[in-house]
Amino acid sequence: MKINRNFLNLKDSYLFATIGQKVNDYQKANPDAAIIRLGIGDVTLPLCPAVTEAMKEAVAEMGARETFRGYGPYEGYAFLREALCVSYAQKGVKLQSDEIFVSDGAKCDVANILDILSGDNVVLIPDPVYPVYLDTNIMDGRTVVFCDATAANEFLPLPDAGTHADIIYLCSPNNPTGSVYTHAQLAQWVAYAREHEALILFDAAYEAFIQDPSLPRSIYEVPGALECAVEIGSFSKTAGFTGTRCGWCVVPKGLIREDVPLHQLWMRRQSTKFNGVSYIVQRGAAAVFTEEGARQIRGHIDMYMGNAKIIAQTMAVHGFAYFGGDNSPYIWLQCPAGMTSWQYFDRLLEQANIVGTPGSGFGANGEGFFRLTAFGSHANTVEAMERFQTLF
Amino acid sequence: MKINRNFLNLKDSYLFATIGQKVNDYQKANPDAAIIRLGIGDVTLPLCPAVTEAMKEAVAEMGARETFRGYGPYEGYAFLREALCVSYAQKGVKLQSDEIFVSDGAKCDVANILDILSGDNVVLIPDPVYPVYLDTNIMDGRTVVFCDATAANEFLPLPDAGTHADIIYLCSPNNPTGSVYTHAQLAQWVAYAREHEALILFDAAYEAFIQDPSLPRSIYEVPGALECAVEIGSFSKTAGFTGTRCGWCVVPKGLIREDVPLHQLWMRRQSTKFNGVSYIVQRGAAAVFTEEGARQIRGHIDMYMGNAKIIAQTMAVHGFAYFGGDNSPYIWLQCPAGMTSWQYFDRLLEQANIVGTPGSGFGANGEGFFRLTAFGSHANTVEAMERFQTLF
Repeated sequence: MKINRNFLNLKDSYLFATIGQKVNDYQKANPDAAIIRLGIGDVTLPLCPAVTEAMKEAVAEMGARETFRGYGPYEGYAFLREALCVSYAQKGVKLQSDEIFVSDGAKCDVANILDILSGDNVVLIPDPVYPVYLDTNIMDGRTVVFCDATAANEFLPLPDAGTHADIIYLCSPNNPTGSVYTHAQLAQWVAYAREHEALILFDAAYEAFIQDPSLPRSIYEVPGALECAVEIGSFSKTAGFTGTRCGWCVVPKGLIREDVPLHQLWMRRQSTKFNGVSYIVQRGAAAVFTEEGARQIRGHIDMYMGNAKIIAQTMAVHGFAYFGGDNSPYIWLQCPAGMTSWQYFDRLLEQANIVGTPGSGFGANGEGFFRLTAFGSHANTVEAMERFQTLF
Repeated sequence: MKINRNFLNLKDSYLFATIGQKVNDYQKANPDAAIIRLGIGDVTLPLCPAVTEAMKEAVAEMGARETFRGYGPYEGYAFLREALCVSYAQKGVKLQSDEIFVSDGAKCDVANILDILSGDNVVLIPDPVYPVYLDTNIMDGRTVVFCDATAANEFLPLPDAGTHADIIYLCSPNNPTGSVYTHAQLAQWVAYAREHEALILFDAAYEAFIQDPSLPRSIYEVPGALECAVEIGSFSKTAGFTGTRCGWCVVPKGLIREDVPLHQLWMRRQSTKFNGVSYIVQRGAAAVFTEEGARQIRGHIDMYMGNAKIIAQTMAVHGFAYFGGDNSPYIWLQCPAGMTSWQYFDRLLEQANIVGTPGSGFGANGEGFFRLTAFGSHANTVEAMERFQTLF
């Protein structure tokens, strides 16, 4: 029996393990240090009451014979797909509800969508980037080319007509840089994808954090995207579902390659390799779209974006070059005085007891940068920024 | 952009769609017919109180800041892995808890495990079989050979020393035939796998239905299996989790191919392409192993096995050749008078208003056979068998 040897080409990912080790070592040596973690992109606010109420009701339904639900639709319950469809319509995006597939999270969709695509495609990935894009393609043995996201292009690379790619990853608002594409910029990518008959995999996991109404929250706001893009969304950061697990994937019916609708391939993939998302979780996710749920969720996002503002203002006051924070929960700052990402990590940990994420962990172009997240508590964020001010 | 053209080699699966259509048409033409469905393998009893109580508590935890859980371990929470480990120990199987990976269902594991295996392996699949084994390998373009499960071998094929295979699927108790391998039979497969350096994928989704204490409930009861088998388990049929979604996959640390531990590959696969199972669902699953939960679950299994007995006895009384039903929720009967599976389907639907599953839907060797399931209600099962008696 032969293993998939592509796995041997993966670089070991020590980023968060190394961070954890360094923090533990420091804490052990300094037991009184009150460390504040603004590193990992996990949320801290609990599920909102509308969601937990809906889930409690669903649990009760599952415990009674008359209302028990067995196997659900592979593609998700209609009540959730229709709620998502309405939510898209509110952004001006017209989808059919059966173009939306419910999943157990954006990460799974980002990875699994590759099953329906040939291994013989050239993949374009921005650098720095969410590591899952790269690693899943290495596992399949695809050729990967990078496009540079740098301070010069405000971490928003645009297509290069001279480079051919078949599959293009875009993440906006971006993890890790917090940058957000405009309509005009996304339109350039859509035009490129149509010209090259490429497929855009658009990761919209952070769209709920966009404050500026002129910025696109879905790639489908760009004309022509329905014929060249798959969009992946998530309840993780929007509604605190990181440990509850629910996301979705839009595969428009007009997206056709080699005369085959990708919708048909994805339906077949999901019905064969997946058995749907827990009914209880889907009921919780649907509650996000009720009036009460939407209001509660908005309160959470406002809290996080308040943190982002506090961090961004502190950076601005001290003359740090930084990106993000206006329309995203990530602040991506340039390390001062030519320090490397890890040097700056050590300095912040040791001198201010603040933990962030070294930018070099997200790719070569992340070297010299540092990611802070707005997902901490308000009190911790304020305290961290006070320490930051003292430091400089 | 090129699609994965292996998908074009999949046969369209019309089995359950065709059944649904035929039943709908019949019901429309005969609105008063009280149709009893003993076809699809979905459960009908609700989640037991121990499970729903645990899930309600978990929902409450997720709604409070102090107890909220964000991202969980990719491989599942220790509380559930340890409970599974104790459950294996009770069968005499000694595992380490970190050899068990929690998933959102056995189907996903059965499909996803292929990610870590080369496309260049020969796959051995029994016929008839759960269609997911075949379809997922077609999607990857692997060479598939079949081994015949027939009445002559009691639907329990044994290895053929003259046939080489790298990956072997075994399902015991079997879906669809209800047959169960003995220790001695599984030992033959383990010996074959070790000789051929093959990998056995052992689907144990129905192990909880085994009544005969001499039959193996895990392939790891066979010495040597820890070095050649991955075992996949499920809460779906055991605890009614078909719509709640939780299963597990055992990848023993001693399972090494090409000098690489499969455990390491699977951990990397899961951490890259999966983000764990909902905390709420994992709490529910763990409750299955409490004293109260185990007792309640046992009651459900006893009810289903009572149904199986009623069906089997009816078949025996009428001189039908049948398999299964003693240690499995499936009864696999030979259609009378040389009828095909679909002819018999039509006859049962029209003359007794009973819906079953044509065996031909599970592979060529299923032709002339028919699957009935014990997952209906007691009353429906009794009523269906009374109609059956009237028919013959």
